[in-house]
Amino acid sequence: MAETSLLQGLIDSLRILPGVGPKSAQRMAFHILERDREGALRLAEVLQEAVTRIGHCKRCRTFTEHELCRLCTNPARQPSQLCVVETPADVVAIEQAAVYKGLYYVLHGSLSPLDGIGPENIGLDALEARLDEKEVNEIILATNTTVEGEVTAHYISEMAHERGIKTTRIAHGVPVGGELEYVDSGTLTHAFEGRKDY
Amino acid sequence: MAETSLLQGLIDSLRILPGVGPKSAQRMAFHILERDREGALRLAEVLQEAVTRIGHCKRCRTFTEHELCRLCTNPARQPSQLCVVETPADVVAIEQAAVYKGLYYVLHGSLSPLDGIGPENIGLDALEARLDEKEVNEIILATNTTVEGEVTAHYISEMAHERGIKTTRIAHGVPVGGELEYVDSGTLTHAFEGRKDY
Repeated sequence: MAETSLLQGLIDSLRILPGVGPKSAQRMAFHILERDREGALRLAEVLQEAVTRIGHCKRCRTFTEHELCRLCTNPARQPSQLCVVETPADVVAIEQAAVYKGLYYVLHGSLSPLDGIGPENIGLDALEARLDEKEVNEIILATNTTVEGEVTAHYISEMAHERGIKTTRIAHGVPVGGELEYVDSGTLTHAFEGRKDY
Repeated sequence: MAETSLLQGLIDSLRILPGVGPKSAQRMAFHILERDREGALRLAEVLQEAVTRIGHCKRCRTFTEHELCRLCTNPARQPSQLCVVETPADVVAIEQAAVYKGLYYVLHGSLSPLDGIGPENIGLDALEARLDEKEVNEIILATNTTVEGEVTAHYISEMAHERGIKTTRIAHGVPVGGELEYVDSGTLTHAFEGRKDY
């Protein structure tokens, strides 16, 4: 074998990254050694620092290295609207659309009793306490359209209704610019059920 | 912005990896933080160790953390045959085919006078010294079929001829299992020029 144990160790370690198989890991390892050792050292430092220091925002549970994230501490955001999402990546996607000016609540998952994931595992107890603060008057449900995501949305809407808080669900349908021909039937079903007067 | 500076720093650092654009880097960063912080710490350590300790084999110039690589120190390999390749990845590919029992010489590039890459930049001075040791009696040229790879192969063959050493070039043609219809014209040209009696 041409690989030394350390090189093979590097290739194996790179495979923890999502979407990286044996061939890409090998390509990455050779690329680093051949062309970017300094970049690799920087990456190693940032990885260590990020993994050690990035935790969850005390208020919305998204990733941050501070006690509270930039959104929760931004006085320009509307605290009466709370958008509930499954992951921090969802927050980034919505922020990129720049359509929403309220706050977020990140579940880091969805209800899945079969996998032993109950309300407290996705922070719904803390969400309940937050609703009791009476600052929120609209919950926007942006969980995924999977069975788990829908169950989670339903559970949260019940919690909100008990407190007289309005809940809305983001619209699901044919993507803008999408061609009907290539849209899956689940999306089409949502599109028909969610049709509006024209 | 939902990203904190440290998270954005992680996303940016991941982009040093080949084939990783902004979207995949973001996906990798969230995956690490959400699901595999321990793996990320191990990766950081291995990266640091690999980049610091992996150097070039003194004899064949492939990557190794030792003075000499496993192939150069393997007494079962045939020292009279020397296969010249452009990169350590080429060595891995040939070893996987398990067809060759000789030794290697890794150039880490190819002659490219326009880019200022001359013989000494790709270790051809050391290769010349090695040929003078008279142990090698066949050089197998496995450089790429690019203009630079061909020029490099030609240069090495001249060096070998001056010393009366036989040189061969690996065959280029239609890949095994390949369909003619999908083979590029450069490969077909090689396939016709390299045709054999049947």
